[in-house]
Amino acid sequence: MKSYRKELWFNVPTRRAFINITPRVMEALRESGIQEGLCLVNAMHITASVFINDDESGLHRDYEDWLEDLAPHEPIEQYSHNRTGEDNADAHLKRQVMGREVIVAITEGRLDFGPWEQIFYGEFDGRRRKRVLVKIIGE
Amino acid sequence: MKSYRKELWFNVPTRRAFINITPRVMEALRESGIQEGLCLVNAMHITASVFINDDESGLHRDYEDWLEDLAPHEPIEQYSHNRTGEDNADAHLKRQVMGREVIVAITEGRLDFGPWEQIFYGEFDGRRRKRVLVKIIGE
Amino acid sequence: MKSYRKELWFNVPTRRAFINITPRVMEALRESGIQEGLCLVNAMHITASVFINDDESGLHRDYEDWLEDLAPHEPIEQYSHNRTGEDNADAHLKRQVMGREVIVAITEGRLDFGPWEQIFYGEFDGRRRKRVLVKIIGE
Repeated sequence: MKSYRKELWFNVPTRRAFINITPRVMEALRESGIQEGLCLVNAMHITASVFINDDESGLHRDYEDWLEDLAPHEPIEQYSHNRTGEDNADAHLKRQVMGREVIVAITEGRLDFGPWEQIFYGEFDGRRRKRVLVKIIGE
Repeated sequence: MKSYRKELWFNVPTRRAFINITPRVMEALRESGIQEGLCLVNAMHITASVFINDDESGLHRDYEDWLEDLAPHEPIEQYSHNRTGEDNADAHLKRQVMGREVIVAITEGRLDFGPWEQIFYGEFDGRRRKRVLVKIIGE
Repeated sequence: MKSYRKELWFNVPTRRAFINITPRVMEALRESGIQEGLCLVNAMHITASVFINDDESGLHRDYEDWLEDLAPHEPIEQYSHNRTGEDNADAHLKRQVMGREVIVAITEGRLDFGPWEQIFYGEFDGRRRKRVLVKIIGE
């Protein structure tokens, strides 16, 4: 069994953003040399997500509006967590809806994807350096 | 390390449905011959889910009503994504709540399940051919 | 390839609770002797979650309030599932938001975590014995 590990770094200039990281995960897979196995891609921070969906800007606006409706940023006093001096409680909630991680099958050295699957980093509390972990096991 | 890959195909005649795919995943596991490992089951389409919960029709009605309340299909104009000519933005949202994939432990050649766990395909934009990927690694 | 399996048992005295299980997962990892691989941690019951987030009591109150708002326990008659004699339909819904499972990378014999990641058992229908499965594969 082989394993490969890589960190992807982000410094999103806005509070929230969705970034297509598929090319960077594909690059990690090539570096690993693994042909058959599983690829874990997870946010290493608890106010961010990794998820798979469509690379369509209208949909990303819909996600933004919908998540803001489900877990509004303001008023920040509505959240107990923000009494610690934080203002990011909503980001911890939004990340649960979108998820922490994805697992992608590796088949014949490729990400084994359906026709429209793309991997996204979902940032909900940006403006600082944060990381995503790629861990691939197989052979 | 062994690996096994199988696609399960669906053509759901309605827009939305929940289908118990546990027997089909068990069949894939038998075909694989794998005794110890991990089994990934994921929707290959971004308007569908794979999730684990109870095979109880009342609960499935509750999921349907609840998801429609969280992310209504209509009015379709409320979603930016639908300006591309689609009418399935709500399906992309519903799928995030229910999830893209599950990972099931394989122990002694069986799906290592608790007493009521069953695997479902959740269709949110049916009436066409769509796929689920089963990928098993182990030995 | 090595594999290791362990069940963690819970008997939460209240209906709902969040319990930090990171030390118990770390103990299972030590017992496994696995240095590189993947660790699956999943609820074996369909009214409970395993998720990764912050060990901060204010945030846990926020999760409790938010989930109760998204999927209220009462009135219990609002759910078709509860006509079976159950009163836990809301727990099946809450668990979908928080998720069934997490996968954690194992690197150099450690849970490969970001700075604040902790693993929680989320109970939404307690007051009875329930289990979490830890399955580790690697070498």
